[in-house]
Amino acid sequence: MGSMDAISVIRTKRDRGELTPDQIDWVIDAYTRGEVAHEQMSSLAMAIFLNGMTRTEIARWTAAMIASGDRMDFSALPRPTADKHSTGGVGDKITLPLAPLVAACGAAVPQLSGRGLGHTGGTLDKLEAIPGWRAHLSNAEMLDVLRDAGSVICAAGDGLAPADKKLYALRDVTGTVESIPLIASSIMSKKIAEGTGSLVLDVKVGSGAFMKHLDDARELASTMVGLGTDHGVRTVALLTDMSTPLGRTAGNALEVRESVEVLAGGGPADVVELTLALAREMLDAAGLPDADPAKALADGSAMDHWRRMITAQGGDPDAPLPQARETHILPAPSSGVLTTLDAYAVGLAAWRLGAGRARKEDPVQAGAGVEMHAKPGDTVVAGQPLLTLHTDTPEKLPYALEALDGGVVVGAAEAGFHASPVVLERIG
Amino acid sequence: MGSMDAISVIRTKRDRGELTPDQIDWVIDAYTRGEVAHEQMSSLAMAIFLNGMTRTEIARWTAAMIASGDRMDFSALPRPTADKHSTGGVGDKITLPLAPLVAACGAAVPQLSGRGLGHTGGTLDKLEAIPGWRAHLSNAEMLDVLRDAGSVICAAGDGLAPADKKLYALRDVTGTVESIPLIASSIMSKKIAEGTGSLVLDVKVGSGAFMKHLDDARELASTMVGLGTDHGVRTVALLTDMSTPLGRTAGNALEVRESVEVLAGGGPADVVELTLALAREMLDAAGLPDADPAKALADGSAMDHWRRMITAQGGDPDAPLPQARETHILPAPSSGVLTTLDAYAVGLAAWRLGAGRARKEDPVQAGAGVEMHAKPGDTVVAGQPLLTLHTDTPEKLPYALEALDGGVVVGAAEAGFHASPVVLERIG
Repeated sequence: MGSMDAISVIRTKRDRGELTPDQIDWVIDAYTRGEVAHEQMSSLAMAIFLNGMTRTEIARWTAAMIASGDRMDFSALPRPTADKHSTGGVGDKITLPLAPLVAACGAAVPQLSGRGLGHTGGTLDKLEAIPGWRAHLSNAEMLDVLRDAGSVICAAGDGLAPADKKLYALRDVTGTVESIPLIASSIMSKKIAEGTGSLVLDVKVGSGAFMKHLDDARELASTMVGLGTDHGVRTVALLTDMSTPLGRTAGNALEVRESVEVLAGGGPADVVELTLALAREMLDAAGLPDADPAKALADGSAMDHWRRMITAQGGDPDAPLPQARETHILPAPSSGVLTTLDAYAVGLAAWRLGAGRARKEDPVQAGAGVEMHAKPGDTVVAGQPLLTLHTDTPEKLPYALEALDGGVVVGAAEAGFHASPVVLERIG
Repeated sequence: MGSMDAISVIRTKRDRGELTPDQIDWVIDAYTRGEVAHEQMSSLAMAIFLNGMTRTEIARWTAAMIASGDRMDFSALPRPTADKHSTGGVGDKITLPLAPLVAACGAAVPQLSGRGLGHTGGTLDKLEAIPGWRAHLSNAEMLDVLRDAGSVICAAGDGLAPADKKLYALRDVTGTVESIPLIASSIMSKKIAEGTGSLVLDVKVGSGAFMKHLDDARELASTMVGLGTDHGVRTVALLTDMSTPLGRTAGNALEVRESVEVLAGGGPADVVELTLALAREMLDAAGLPDADPAKALADGSAMDHWRRMITAQGGDPDAPLPQARETHILPAPSSGVLTTLDAYAVGLAAWRLGAGRARKEDPVQAGAGVEMHAKPGDTVVAGQPLLTLHTDTPEKLPYALEALDGGVVVGAAEAGFHASPVVLERIG
């Protein structure tokens, strides 16, 4: 009698109470062990979604998820560790140039990354477009790549925060993803368990992000910064714009190509700006405030680190990238200014073209995606190519075009256009 | 694209939208077939619990659960059918005397009943205390008993509202039981599928009931009356008191004994009052307003119908009832007036003594329970027996006594006592 049970934990949150530390520790541990059933955790997740959690509850929930598995330790490395996490957006290939760039500036970058689900892409899917590149490394291999190349981008091992792995998969199928307490604890449990010394969070805001509104993004960011700080990880967050895609490509091989352009000193201005802003934050947090990432892009040392990292993970940095079998051009419907190029519309189109997956077990098309020939604010002429759609499955083209309907708007030239800055706010 | 899927249904309710008829039909059917997973239905159930459903949604949800299985049909019977459903309470043995009483007055009473779970007892558990009595009948057997005895009390077959059966078991383990839309649709889908022509609902209010407050009980009652009426079932509801147990016993064999006392023309006043009130409503709804249930209790015809029903279902109405191995007397702590005899406390004590089950698969003790020697308002003398606890597992006595702590209060004689009426309101 009176012992811990799932129903009493669910009722506490359902009835707007605060979960005790014992309830949280018990439910996370019992769920990991399979004693609490999926259907019990999903009703608890929905109660958390609708009734929220206090900062105290979120901190304990995160700690319990960390305690469910192993912790990594990079303290034996001779260099300070720095890591970055993005909450996910469209065309967000920043990790690709950023990790070798920060490595080139003197930090060690152990970047555990994920796959895309829904309309947002995944870093591992993008890098797997490079022939031979491997996402799955043992802990020993990961440390070797990190020592040799200064950075490593790979999948998290099974031992890291297994409670989060289980809960994340559950949330994905039960409509309980977009909850600030659950997102914050999921991200931070993995990042803290990973053992990085410092962490920069890129919290996306806008149509292509989980957080559509600035105040939600601000709350998510400050929750995560608080969690990191409490666990001894130097943590800062940038709130960045995701109302329009980053750069000029959304898709796997397409984004690798654009990332290599940035590492070669070129690339779209917004991608370069965000890469440098995040690099400076990471280097600051890692205790290397005097490093100059702009120089490392210009002098080829970032590109050099990229080639070492890709090679160390089995990839051929010189191999031609896969191309989609078919392309389809979307022309400008009229002359004027491109006023809207909606991130969600482009992300959904890229997904439907084959760049993303509907279920975890689905494959992705390496060559599929959307190439953008104009950015919001650009002047365009009727009939000029606005977008090129790439796909191996042209029967899906109508659905991709349907996704873009209303998401691409050309306005009168005199209407004017107010561009959003890339970095909106800094928290930390 | 745009096809029906569980996540979009969950999101609609989660975000406080109204589910469309198509969404409801699809999700109930897909859950019954196993295409919608338990963890998806449980997060939907929690969203319904917290965000509610409109009357339109509840009506469609109920219709979809009815459509998930078979419907019974008693229209071939020469007599009008009448049924009663109680939302469950402590000491609520009313179905036992009521079904044969109403049969004795000329209606046919096909009473599909359930088992107890938690602190409330179940009609089938009580009747199984009678040696030989069988709860599980085929449809043909059920009709035979109904023809011979005028009433039948048995378990619902597997084909009746299977969606409800599955959802009820799920709600039980996911903290989503006490939701008015889910309770109303669960009860009414079974009762409408059962095919009764009229239905009287006994909606309990108070500490021993699901509904602790009169306004909640009123909403549940009017929701159910609306559902029944919409499906062509003449439906009325009585709101009745469940702040203190009904009668003087809570337990299986103990309640059978008390029911037989009522059928013999005796028994506790509150049990007789409620049995007659419900009988009059059932006879009215069945189109037999001139029947006289008080006479049928007094002249032995109700008892005669009881004996025929029990015998037809394999039971021996003359066999001695099982008795618990041990008893323990709780004396009055002081002299005065019994001001509180809390229904929940007594129900929990009876449960812990072995009268109820913690999990569906557990057995119950036929003899276990609580016998009450005084009712609220009675004058008691210090040291006189207040309660007798019956159990086969005396090691559970301390837990039963703990459950009663604070639930049995003797006040000063001059403090006065205001008794609650048995029937609080009528809706329909």
